[in-house]
Amino acid sequence: MERNILLTLEYDGTGLCGWQRQPGLMTVQGEVEKALSEITGKSIRIDGVSRTDAGVHALGQRASFSGDFGIPTHRIAKALNDKLASGTKPGAIRVVSAEERPAGFHARFDSKGKKYRYLIRNAGEMSPFERNFKYLVRNELDVRSMQEAADHIKGTHDFACFQAAGGTLRETTVRTVTDIGVAVIEEDDIGRDIALEISGDGFLYNMVRIITGTLVEVGAGKIAPEEMKDIIESCDRARAGHTAPPQGLYLVEVYY
Amino acid sequence: MERNILLTLEYDGTGLCGWQRQPGLMTVQGEVEKALSEITGKSIRIDGVSRTDAGVHALGQRASFSGDFGIPTHRIAKALNDKLASGTKPGAIRVVSAEERPAGFHARFDSKGKKYRYLIRNAGEMSPFERNFKYLVRNELDVRSMQEAADHIKGTHDFACFQAAGGTLRETTVRTVTDIGVAVIEEDDIGRDIALEISGDGFLYNMVRIITGTLVEVGAGKIAPEEMKDIIESCDRARAGHTAPPQGLYLVEVYY
Repeated sequence: MERNILLTLEYDGTGLCGWQRQPGLMTVQGEVEKALSEITGKSIRIDGVSRTDAGVHALGQRASFSGDFGIPTHRIAKALNDKLASGTKPGAIRVVSAEERPAGFHARFDSKGKKYRYLIRNAGEMSPFERNFKYLVRNELDVRSMQEAADHIKGTHDFACFQAAGGTLRETTVRTVTDIGVAVIEEDDIGRDIALEISGDGFLYNMVRIITGTLVEVGAGKIAPEEMKDIIESCDRARAGHTAPPQGLYLVEVYY
Repeated sequence: MERNILLTLEYDGTGLCGWQRQPGLMTVQGEVEKALSEITGKSIRIDGVSRTDAGVHALGQRASFSGDFGIPTHRIAKALNDKLASGTKPGAIRVVSAEERPAGFHARFDSKGKKYRYLIRNAGEMSPFERNFKYLVRNELDVRSMQEAADHIKGTHDFACFQAAGGTLRETTVRTVTDIGVAVIEEDDIGRDIALEISGDGFLYNMVRIITGTLVEVGAGKIAPEEMKDIIESCDRARAGHTAPPQGLYLVEVYY
């Protein structure tokens, strides 16, 4: 009997070539499909919610697949993790859970929204242990201005200004950002961590990284907080800031 | 005028081929010497306190060098870090500080001892973000037995049983462990972290990793805590436990 399975995945994107399957490259989709084929004996294709880029991390990526295969649902996560880790060495990708869903359920089409986090290392230096997990901005950023600018992003807008070239073509660039917050979450001897959290019904290609880059320029005093409104209304990518690097970005959660 | 400089270094050992300079391989000594040569215009050799293996990390490694070069001492750390990070990308190695020391001072010969930490991920699973920084032991370990066994290690003993083949030949295998502690330091939804901390006047080749492996076997009930005394007295490597993997080990501090 055909079953429909929803996977929750976490991965360290360092050294992975992103989500999407690519011949000869180590990608999340490619590795999980390979492991699924090994444990089921069938060729299985999975569909993920977010096509994360190379270097981007996930704490709660979701992907679904369906098929008729022997392994019970409650054994799928462990069986996949055993394959994803070579020998006794834990892997870059971990299956957090595998759950059955009704026929016709689709991880991406049925999702209501997503939450991303972006970590900035600020006002100092970064230890070698943080380098693949945060974006280093040495000069102190004005977090209050960043939050003020971020408030203009909240709501339903045409976000064409925050869309990079190269993604899948979408019918519309209108999206709803339901929540956005910027805050210092930790301080230590050599610097501090600023987290940007953003939730919405959908995101354009590189949208969170371009929003982060723009907010960093606000925090650095290069863009005034109130200018954010004009930038959004301009629908002009050239008016927004730089694209923040991939290693600070985390897909935190998918909403259903 | 000749100056004598003491460096404090931290590094993420993942992907590095250990401390010691080796032609064609990326090692800590090799990278720091290359950066030093670039900023001084001279060929400089550094001497480190601990020859950490591939995959082993350091929070407070020390190394010294001397020479007659133009750059002021207070600029050395930043200049080295700029070289050690390619472009704006932070590197695997960071110079925490560079300080002047009297002529004749030597980082290794003048050190009084060292402190190491070993992190074990226990009683569950490990996230992909932890895999290069902890040793995963899935079954729950009895931490109280481990501490009881560790107490036998404290003091001055012939530690030949904890010495791996392949290190530099030493005149004696007698060392003094001044402090050793085993404790659960964190718990989360999918497991917990156990830290072993050990300080001493000197350590034999792979000594901390073999002590960890032996304590893991005590925690798993394969070796009785009181057996530790016999194992040490036997001076027999075959009596001790396995060598724990490199990625859980951190050189924390060097004492002067």
